[in-house]
Amino acid sequence: MQQYFVNGRAPQGVFQISDKDTAKHMFSVMRLQADDQIVLVFDDGIKRLARVVDSQSQSVEIIEELADNVELPVSVTIAMGFPKGDKLEFVAQKATELGMAALWAFPADWSVVKWDGKKLAKKAEKLEKIAQGAAEQSKRNRIPAIRLFEKKADFLSQLAGFDRIILAYEEAAKEGEQANLVKILSGLEIGQSVLVIVGPEGGVSPEEVAAFEGAGAVKTGLGPRILRAETAPLYALSAISYATELLS
Amino acid sequence: MQQYFVNGRAPQGVFQISDKDTAKHMFSVMRLQADDQIVLVFDDGIKRLARVVDSQSQSVEIIEELADNVELPVSVTIAMGFPKGDKLEFVAQKATELGMAALWAFPADWSVVKWDGKKLAKKAEKLEKIAQGAAEQSKRNRIPAIRLFEKKADFLSQLAGFDRIILAYEEAAKEGEQANLVKILSGLEIGQSVLVIVGPEGGVSPEEVAAFEGAGAVKTGLGPRILRAETAPLYALSAISYATELLS
Repeated sequence: MQQYFVNGRAPQGVFQISDKDTAKHMFSVMRLQADDQIVLVFDDGIKRLARVVDSQSQSVEIIEELADNVELPVSVTIAMGFPKGDKLEFVAQKATELGMAALWAFPADWSVVKWDGKKLAKKAEKLEKIAQGAAEQSKRNRIPAIRLFEKKADFLSQLAGFDRIILAYEEAAKEGEQANLVKILSGLEIGQSVLVIVGPEGGVSPEEVAAFEGAGAVKTGLGPRILRAETAPLYALSAISYATELLS
Repeated sequence: MQQYFVNGRAPQGVFQISDKDTAKHMFSVMRLQADDQIVLVFDDGIKRLARVVDSQSQSVEIIEELADNVELPVSVTIAMGFPKGDKLEFVAQKATELGMAALWAFPADWSVVKWDGKKLAKKAEKLEKIAQGAAEQSKRNRIPAIRLFEKKADFLSQLAGFDRIILAYEEAAKEGEQANLVKILSGLEIGQSVLVIVGPEGGVSPEEVAAFEGAGAVKTGLGPRILRAETAPLYALSAISYATELLS
């Protein structure tokens, strides 16, 4: 069954789908007709079974709440040094499927690309659309929040808010560091927040490592192979799912 | 340090890099000079430190064997129903980084694309190049083998050769099946072979589920979220790495 995110609170009675993109997808692309059923998710993250009342007026009504919750038991934010090309778009889609709560990016010392405020606003808008589409497809209860920092200092000032900070560190993989990820994941409690920091293609600079460690980050190997920047978040999220959803 | 795969056995003394693509990358793209060091991996999968003797004649010599081995302790083959577009290419790259031993694909009942022998040969060649590049970048000891089956029966006849068969099954995720993956992964022993079967976008047909189960496959949820066909192998490989390399 198709799932759509809708802004605001769930209304009583019959109401119109006001978001143009959502309405277009429902009634023009999917050609939903009266009595077709869909799942709607409002800001409260609760899935609700709904039915189309009339496709002409694009009106629907809620039938009942669904108990279905597929969010990770911990809140995982992925923070990536600005990478080249469309790697953030790739991570926005795949990491949303894998349960990420938020995608952040920041100008790292070794980021090749330089993005100004205007470029960042455009990029964020694009990433939000990708995350929404992926969240609908993977039947998430929440759309991951996107936040692109123009200044690294603003990103650094956010680190104190997390319970655990994993720094995906290529050198750790090379040195055979294998224990930290298990130590961190097996100690996680429901509702805790985890930040996973991934460098751009060139990796994180020694000054950044020091700054992140100063804020509580732990250098962590993600297995012994060298992962590309955009693959590391997928490994981290899959391992977090395995450790917190399947193992426990 | 750059790593390259070279066909055949490691030679004694000074020798020429005969593969044109590899030689081009080493001496034209990376512009290696005399005494620059590289890592070469021959058919035995052992990494060897080597040095450039002369860039003009594209000759090198081996210095010493390296103990470095980053292969998964179990052999994981990913088998995918022919997917649309360039999804196999995507999996060839990302799953190689994550340690896959082989990538297979087969014509599934619900595969939209129809690929004949000629198309398959071309596709396989492309996938082999991608896997080689990803194996070099992620410092693997082995290049994953690529095998595309023109007939599903030929694929089915191979299933008996695996110790464990995981069928990534969307319906299992929807039904909240969470236990099977842990059961399978925690029972794995070093050197065992695992086949992970993933359907095309449309999923696997009931007849295929029956055939796979008949051959010993276990329907397995990969967490509670619905993963796209090309994302499921990445979750499986990351979980296998976490369970067999980090946890144990």
